[in-house]
Amino acid sequence: MPDKPSLYTVLSPALLDLYEIDNAIVVIIDVLRATSTIATALYNGAESVLPVDTVEKCITLGKLKGAITAGEREGKVIEGLQHGNSPLEYDREFIQNKNLVLTTTNGTKLLYMALEKGATNIITGAFANQSAVIDYLISQRRNVILACGAWKDRINIEDTLFAGAVVDKVKDHFHINCDSSSIAQSVYADAKEDLFSYVKRKHASHYLRLSGYGLEKDIAYCLTPDTANVLPVFSDGRLTAGDH
Amino acid sequence: MPDKPSLYTVLSPALLDLYEIDNAIVVIIDVLRATSTIATALYNGAESVLPVDTVEKCITLGKLKGAITAGEREGKVIEGLQHGNSPLEYDREFIQNKNLVLTTTNGTKLLYMALEKGATNIITGAFANQSAVIDYLISQRRNVILACGAWKDRINIEDTLFAGAVVDKVKDHFHINCDSSSIAQSVYADAKEDLFSYVKRKHASHYLRLSGYGLEKDIAYCLTPDTANVLPVFSDGRLTAGDH
Repeated sequence: MPDKPSLYTVLSPALLDLYEIDNAIVVIIDVLRATSTIATALYNGAESVLPVDTVEKCITLGKLKGAITAGEREGKVIEGLQHGNSPLEYDREFIQNKNLVLTTTNGTKLLYMALEKGATNIITGAFANQSAVIDYLISQRRNVILACGAWKDRINIEDTLFAGAVVDKVKDHFHINCDSSSIAQSVYADAKEDLFSYVKRKHASHYLRLSGYGLEKDIAYCLTPDTANVLPVFSDGRLTAGDH
Repeated sequence: MPDKPSLYTVLSPALLDLYEIDNAIVVIIDVLRATSTIATALYNGAESVLPVDTVEKCITLGKLKGAITAGEREGKVIEGLQHGNSPLEYDREFIQNKNLVLTTTNGTKLLYMALEKGATNIITGAFANQSAVIDYLISQRRNVILACGAWKDRINIEDTLFAGAVVDKVKDHFHINCDSSSIAQSVYADAKEDLFSYVKRKHASHYLRLSGYGLEKDIAYCLTPDTANVLPVFSDGRLTAGDH
């Protein structure tokens, strides 16, 4: 029987250097809200999502035809950009056939960090497209890195929970000698009956930040599995809906 | 009612920079096995434990009268030193009134990292001295940082479990807006019925490393609460048994 591929979970971008990412599928995870929004926009027919790591690039690329700029810092729309990070802004009527140029505090930065460190196979994951991610990882039989966006390098609950959900469902297909993966899986086991109330009960720091802006609906959406079951694949600076 | 002090958990030394440690009690955690050994040696009457971050310092300080040198790298006794990191080596007959000069891969390095970053109130914690740590933290009414030694910056299960045990028992006395603390608490909740079998079942990478050297007994000891219930307090380069 051939060896199973390996799977590692990286709970903060500050730990990414410790792992070999160049020969692995890297799953970028930023549940609140970048990767939930990416899945939603592509699911609703966006031609592509262009994740960019600076506001300046966002504005420049936003001048292209059919482009919509979106981005937040500290949970608020950035001056000079048109839209925010809420996945609920990107329904089919609005986003179909458009290109979403997106910059966020953690998720898009992590994607470029992975790229700079040599990752050649990058996808994005969130509860919104959970099954697409899981099916893809199982089918590829390649090493996997689950890379959590966290919050300014501090580990967060919601990204850890999604990593745990993935570990829980793919574990029989991988060789997992990674304590962070076991930790994520245990947290998910503690929370899976009701992710929303778990996050609320634990006073997750991000929940407090976002609900302060009145965004409880976003959070509930972002913790619901398979609302936008598409596989965002990164190539040539853009994410498009791949086969899964 | 006065505000409660804050509590944060730092799951890897690579994340220590993100936290304010200079006005907090910093609990250094390296369950397998540095901080378990420190508690055990002091509990069994060692005059002090001198944690040092290099083998050279260990050898130099080992020339002092009544000193015993101990240290491991990759789980094996270092050439030039006398003893290993196993807490079971340090029974009363052997260690009473002696000074243990100790260097380890993760725990002692983290202690010096905290010192360099301005920590002024450092103690060490492990399951072996769990109640002493908890009683001290509750009594002091000061901010707390639970700092996990991890394994070469990779988050590990056993240090996370001990942080979770502490959070679980002190949480009503602190303001905890820290996802890593919630994560640690959930992992502990998943494991507390039987820590040893949890660690074994999860194939914790450290368990695999140590049990490879035939050290299952060490691991079982290090996961047992309150076998050496003393409070190791760091001052002037040495750890001594403090009041608790």
